[in-house]
Amino acid sequence: MNKKTVVVLSGGMDSTTLLYALLEKKHKVKAISFDYGQKHKKELKMAKKTCEELGVDHQIVKLNAFKGLLKSALTDKKQDIPEGHYEDEVMKQTVVPNRNMIMLSIAMGYAISIGYRNVAYAAHAGDHAIYPDCRPAFVEAIGRLAEVVDYEPITILTPYLDITKTEVLKKGIDLDVDYSHTWSCYKGKKKACGKCGTCVERLEAFRENNLKDPIEYEV
Amino acid sequence: MNKKTVVVLSGGMDSTTLLYALLEKKHKVKAISFDYGQKHKKELKMAKKTCEELGVDHQIVKLNAFKGLLKSALTDKKQDIPEGHYEDEVMKQTVVPNRNMIMLSIAMGYAISIGYRNVAYAAHAGDHAIYPDCRPAFVEAIGRLAEVVDYEPITILTPYLDITKTEVLKKGIDLDVDYSHTWSCYKGKKKACGKCGTCVERLEAFRENNLKDPIEYEV
Repeated sequence: MNKKTVVVLSGGMDSTTLLYALLEKKHKVKAISFDYGQKHKKELKMAKKTCEELGVDHQIVKLNAFKGLLKSALTDKKQDIPEGHYEDEVMKQTVVPNRNMIMLSIAMGYAISIGYRNVAYAAHAGDHAIYPDCRPAFVEAIGRLAEVVDYEPITILTPYLDITKTEVLKKGIDLDVDYSHTWSCYKGKKKACGKCGTCVERLEAFRENNLKDPIEYEV
Repeated sequence: MNKKTVVVLSGGMDSTTLLYALLEKKHKVKAISFDYGQKHKKELKMAKKTCEELGVDHQIVKLNAFKGLLKSALTDKKQDIPEGHYEDEVMKQTVVPNRNMIMLSIAMGYAISIGYRNVAYAAHAGDHAIYPDCRPAFVEAIGRLAEVVDYEPITILTPYLDITKTEVLKKGIDLDVDYSHTWSCYKGKKKACGKCGTCVERLEAFRENNLKDPIEYEV
């Protein structure tokens, strides 16, 4: 198997765990992050920090020029970040239309340019309820597309597709992931809010692993 | 059929013809163009001009921030644009890795944001030889992906997939397309070079329709 892999790194828990896991499996890795105008830009600083610590080549691609093109509570200052559980209908406001396809398409173009043949991203089972572009049907379809985007196929790696964030965290603990250098909260303030969908899921994952989240919360 | 359509408009002959054709078929159209650092930025001015003439809402999305990420003779100042026919091996240098998937993914995100359900692009039979992302296999795979990127499916329209540029031009003539406001040449100088792959194909299309191309050529 070709082990040259571009990993889409948000700076959150799942993709950071994935980066550690790929390195552990001896992949040659380049990380790519995206500034799409998200309010929680803090995740990008964490991504950078993690890559520096691990000695991984890292690029932040600026997509903020089309912030206004894609409607989402994650990017629109006039819209508040909803609070509650990921499965709540209100969380649909946090979808950035087609974000994953956009990020993966650029990651693929980058991979082709440097002769890498894999693109990894950390969609996991908890995302399915609300995000169309984290569902198995999306992953399957983009995997097939990746086979024909270039003269040679690109492989999309999504090892966490069928497991929950709790299980991702379990894997990360075994890999000694430094979760103090990850960020999830959509509000992007100094401390995590503890109330938005991604905070709720993150706290649940730590609780279910009988661990304390090393980052600070407002509540 | 839903007739709200985002069209990917390069400013070249094919996509301009497609725009006219969609309007003729009473689609409600929004056009989107991409500045990815191409040397032939002149095509974007043409796209703008055409949309102004036709009263079509038009956006130019700046992707030039990641110009260096995608290796291509179309964007790299150190690399010359190759001359010859599209089918020549040397033309592979003009491929921008995964460009169409990137542009279509953004166009889809935009369509979802404004409640449009179709995205049209003008891949045609002449492109297949050299561009992986113009082949029927690519179009079929991205069509399937488009069905699952959102809660409701997006439809990818590629009406010219099986016809040549000569036939596209024939359709455009019937639609009174103003080809003086289109640009193809990859070199992007004052006059078209007449020698690069896209010039060769364009001139061939006019010749085969017994017409004179209204734009100026160096030779």
